[in-house]
Amino acid sequence: MNQVAIVMGSISDWPTMQSTAAILTELQIPFCKRIISAHRMPQTLQSFAQQAITEQIDVIIAGAGGAAHLPGMLAANTTRPVIGVPIESHALHGIDSLLSIVQMPAGVPVSTMAIGTAGAKNAALQAASILALQDRALQQRLTDYRAAQTQRSVESEAQLD
Amino acid sequence: MNQVAIVMGSISDWPTMQSTAAILTELQIPFCKRIISAHRMPQTLQSFAQQAITEQIDVIIAGAGGAAHLPGMLAANTTRPVIGVPIESHALHGIDSLLSIVQMPAGVPVSTMAIGTAGAKNAALQAASILALQDRALQQRLTDYRAAQTQRSVESEAQLD
Amino acid sequence: MNQVAIVMGSISDWPTMQSTAAILTELQIPFCKRIISAHRMPQTLQSFAQQAITEQIDVIIAGAGGAAHLPGMLAANTTRPVIGVPIESHALHGIDSLLSIVQMPAGVPVSTMAIGTAGAKNAALQAASILALQDRALQQRLTDYRAAQTQRSVESEAQLD
Amino acid sequence: MNQVAIVMGSISDWPTMQSTAAILTELQIPFCKRIISAHRMPQTLQSFAQQAITEQIDVIIAGAGGAAHLPGMLAANTTRPVIGVPIESHALHGIDSLLSIVQMPAGVPVSTMAIGTAGAKNAALQAASILALQDRALQQRLTDYRAAQTQRSVESEAQLD
Amino acid sequence: MNQVAIVMGSISDWPTMQSTAAILTELQIPFCKRIISAHRMPQTLQSFAQQAITEQIDVIIAGAGGAAHLPGMLAANTTRPVIGVPIESHALHGIDSLLSIVQMPAGVPVSTMAIGTAGAKNAALQAASILALQDRALQQRLTDYRAAQTQRSVESEAQLD
Amino acid sequence: MNQVAIVMGSISDWPTMQSTAAILTELQIPFCKRIISAHRMPQTLQSFAQQAITEQIDVIIAGAGGAAHLPGMLAANTTRPVIGVPIESHALHGIDSLLSIVQMPAGVPVSTMAIGTAGAKNAALQAASILALQDRALQQRLTDYRAAQTQRSVESEAQLD
Amino acid sequence: MNQVAIVMGSISDWPTMQSTAAILTELQIPFCKRIISAHRMPQTLQSFAQQAITEQIDVIIAGAGGAAHLPGMLAANTTRPVIGVPIESHALHGIDSLLSIVQMPAGVPVSTMAIGTAGAKNAALQAASILALQDRALQQRLTDYRAAQTQRSVESEAQLD
Amino acid sequence: MNQVAIVMGSISDWPTMQSTAAILTELQIPFCKRIISAHRMPQTLQSFAQQAITEQIDVIIAGAGGAAHLPGMLAANTTRPVIGVPIESHALHGIDSLLSIVQMPAGVPVSTMAIGTAGAKNAALQAASILALQDRALQQRLTDYRAAQTQRSVESEAQLD
Repeated sequence: MNQVAIVMGSISDWPTMQSTAAILTELQIPFCKRIISAHRMPQTLQSFAQQAITEQIDVIIAGAGGAAHLPGMLAANTTRPVIGVPIESHALHGIDSLLSIVQMPAGVPVSTMAIGTAGAKNAALQAASILALQDRALQQRLTDYRAAQTQRSVESEAQLD
Repeated sequence: MNQVAIVMGSISDWPTMQSTAAILTELQIPFCKRIISAHRMPQTLQSFAQQAITEQIDVIIAGAGGAAHLPGMLAANTTRPVIGVPIESHALHGIDSLLSIVQMPAGVPVSTMAIGTAGAKNAALQAASILALQDRALQQRLTDYRAAQTQRSVESEAQLD
Repeated sequence: MNQVAIVMGSISDWPTMQSTAAILTELQIPFCKRIISAHRMPQTLQSFAQQAITEQIDVIIAGAGGAAHLPGMLAANTTRPVIGVPIESHALHGIDSLLSIVQMPAGVPVSTMAIGTAGAKNAALQAASILALQDRALQQRLTDYRAAQTQRSVESEAQLD
Repeated sequence: MNQVAIVMGSISDWPTMQSTAAILTELQIPFCKRIISAHRMPQTLQSFAQQAITEQIDVIIAGAGGAAHLPGMLAANTTRPVIGVPIESHALHGIDSLLSIVQMPAGVPVSTMAIGTAGAKNAALQAASILALQDRALQQRLTDYRAAQTQRSVESEAQLD
Repeated sequence: MNQVAIVMGSISDWPTMQSTAAILTELQIPFCKRIISAHRMPQTLQSFAQQAITEQIDVIIAGAGGAAHLPGMLAANTTRPVIGVPIESHALHGIDSLLSIVQMPAGVPVSTMAIGTAGAKNAALQAASILALQDRALQQRLTDYRAAQTQRSVESEAQLD
Repeated sequence: MNQVAIVMGSISDWPTMQSTAAILTELQIPFCKRIISAHRMPQTLQSFAQQAITEQIDVIIAGAGGAAHLPGMLAANTTRPVIGVPIESHALHGIDSLLSIVQMPAGVPVSTMAIGTAGAKNAALQAASILALQDRALQQRLTDYRAAQTQRSVESEAQLD
Repeated sequence: MNQVAIVMGSISDWPTMQSTAAILTELQIPFCKRIISAHRMPQTLQSFAQQAITEQIDVIIAGAGGAAHLPGMLAANTTRPVIGVPIESHALHGIDSLLSIVQMPAGVPVSTMAIGTAGAKNAALQAASILALQDRALQQRLTDYRAAQTQRSVESEAQLD
Repeated sequence: MNQVAIVMGSISDWPTMQSTAAILTELQIPFCKRIISAHRMPQTLQSFAQQAITEQIDVIIAGAGGAAHLPGMLAANTTRPVIGVPIESHALHGIDSLLSIVQMPAGVPVSTMAIGTAGAKNAALQAASILALQDRALQQRLTDYRAAQTQRSVESEAQLD
């Protein structure tokens, strides 16, 4: 069965990207996870992205921080949809990560999410919405997931003391 | 046949979003185009997004500027993938549009593109990469499109005098 | 009697918005408080705002963070004055919240306050100044409140050692 | 009859603030207009603000740019609601004006609008929404104004070629 | 003897402005210290500044944060040199304080220092350099102060292990 | 007689710094003007600043743009008050100039003015306020200058049509 | 003989990077010039960088704009020194280009220059300073170049009218 | 043998710059380390930089924060390559340091690295890549260093639980 790939530039990105994995698991979407540093492992990046289609990878989610080149370079090497997650960087709090990912030139798109954990979660949900276009059961699980989170928001009002 | 919707908040966004339409046309992807102001037509926004699935709209591309609420509010009302294009605003050159679109809270994703025309073009290409997952002919046209743009880059080197 | 509504996008905004509630209480202004997530509960948002006038809500104070669409979308659905409080967000410290709230397009205003607790307090005071236009007793309480805070500033000089 | 005051720091702010005047006129709200530089005419600022209540001024709209102290200093001298319009400055495009107006400390609120003309227009609409709380006819005119602008948005869709 | 005034907008600014007081003390420059909130005590601000010349105050040092109007409004009410210290604010770390102080319009200058403690120290040194123009003994103490700090820098090299 | 020095990093700064010269002339303050590039003429910079005291230069006004090191390096080489004017740079509109000038470390102050022409004018006025401490006639001219500009503001109100 | 490579991501970068070529020519440093888009020609990028050493390329100068990945990805594929020039981008004026180039993670350095033409010129001068370490004649030409530019600065003072 | 100089503006920069020293040591590159404050020790700065060539210093690495003038002023006084490391500053997290270092005017280049520790490490690696142009053994050690860090990235994947 086709799957999602979670790729990150460094093991230090895993605490953020775990949120992606958790939601994919909850939605029963198969996924693999990889560490591929754009700057330390550029050949691996290239071969991984070029083989995405034959490896049945339908969506690539890539998290990276600072001068974050991973999502864009993956997108440069595949026509599969790439979703980028800007990791919160130390000095500039992720504004560098965000601009490095989102400001792609015309011709090679990266679907950019919010900085940090919110973006990591939404990357999984966006992958789900893409895959659900051809998977009715997943579409139902996604709809249920959204309804449940709405319900939690509604119920949280009781905590206003 | 399923289609893409191009939605924008104002007629003044059309010069940017025409770039989306042009690439969708070139890739033979059917699309409709709508003006739906999040702030002036909130009910229309809501009913449009809620009917996206039954209207066979597979991907929504939404362009908006300033306090750009259109992409996020569309995403709030559908589980179809929403792609946001930050329109270049007058005073702040689109950094307000970008942050208003990309910094979505966990739970409701928007695939954010670059500010302005580059983002508008890439929105079309990202929609194509999503739809191509279930359309081999489109996948081929997308691959050809990317090859052609690479070829143009290669040939442009001759212009270095 | 007419009242103020304090609306927030998430229970996590309550520690900030409590400051609004405290000052409204001190000024004896009746208020209700609600959690209405723009992105998770868009229909609730719409019906709440549309019924504000018939529900005798004179001023809506809305706190939200990140891609903060709540104040603007409330304003889109009512002609009652809406006061927005940008919640301090994690990565970008509220500059995203601020721009998402303040940069509203022409036609739908949101009265934006400072980021965080200072803004939450001032939202209550601004609501008071609006309601005081038709309530002489409240005008007097507001004048007294301002005089008292001036007095505290004057007296704090004694703490300069 | 009570009225709105449009105050600006310099004659160079008038091209922006004319948009405020035009909408107040359209909504039949009486207003006066003044040039009061916070830095060149501080005593005038103080006496103007202190006399606002006795002069039957119900809402003050103040436009200023750069280190924009006018709205905040007016608010320091009155309990009438003050609406601030950040004028687009030359070098920093109004981000300095915005922060100087919106980041008021707790205790003295300024209702801040968007940078530039959009903010100037919305200041008038926000003043209208405040005054409409005690003026049914104005409430109707405001509702009609909003309906008309929605209609224009709807009709603009025909211009999408 | 003539003196320097240290003015701050809030008691919460004192931990920063103590650095100003410490250096003035070290350089044997007489000074007074005042809490004058621009927004809570606008009349006090005005009368204080207007009396600066007759009160033998030669230089005013003013610290303020957020929408920091104190230094500029003091300068509006006197021709004595005003030195502004942007206090580090909570959400925006003082960039709002800095722009609110430094971006003064033509006609009313404020000598702006760095954000936070470094700026508070330098305000004292700048006041010293101004007063030293007419005070040879102070000029010598300032020269000695600068030589001593150079010496400490030179000696710190020994701590490089 | 003692004088002011206007120093700039490049002939391209002259259109801005002419505003300084014009006001010094108007206030009858003697001045010299120099081009001293911090990066191209570092020795000249050093000797100029070191000789300021013996050359009877009482105040140094320095304009520079981009990575603007001129004001700070002049201040490093003299105890005379240095006033810095951030020139509006091409790409970043002077925010780089501003931060390079204002964020001086503790120990060596630079009195920073607004970006561009407003700052250039205010540099002259700040120099005047410093020199006026020991020159009653100049104090009177400065007071008159300020009164005249207030008068122009007052009169400009007539242009509000 | 060894040489410098000027690489740019698009023909639209050439007007900026011509300034690099002009100075290399003036300093008699041999160079080649290439268009290699990181996103459209990723394999070419990789093979070019990997062959830099065997192709006798001693220094690579790379100009790119927006989400500028070219300099960093070249550096990922070679140990030759890479100098990055942030091209001034349309919406964000090059701040995105700058952060995308300079904020490289530990392990793979890029020597980043100023945004735009100043950076393009300095890239050539920095390459010269590197190559001059092993080329006395070039060292002399570089020293002469610097002396000449100093002389031009000195002489420009005559244009101060 | 020729060497690298690590220069910093203050002992407080040493915790960052130690990362530079550690990598130079690991790559067996001789180096000296100095504290030279641009603002407190300007003459030392000048003589140090002017003697770099005769002192056999081939590359200067300079770390500084805030209004960081050290790298640029060293570059102004030598034609040896200067690498700048923006130290993370307190209030602005190093964006001031970065802009003060990187935005050098045409004519005097500084090779700017990332803010903070990543930049300090990369400064050492960039110096190594420069020196390796004339030192085959160092070239091999640098190649080995890069291979080892790639290997660590590859192996870190096992930590993804």
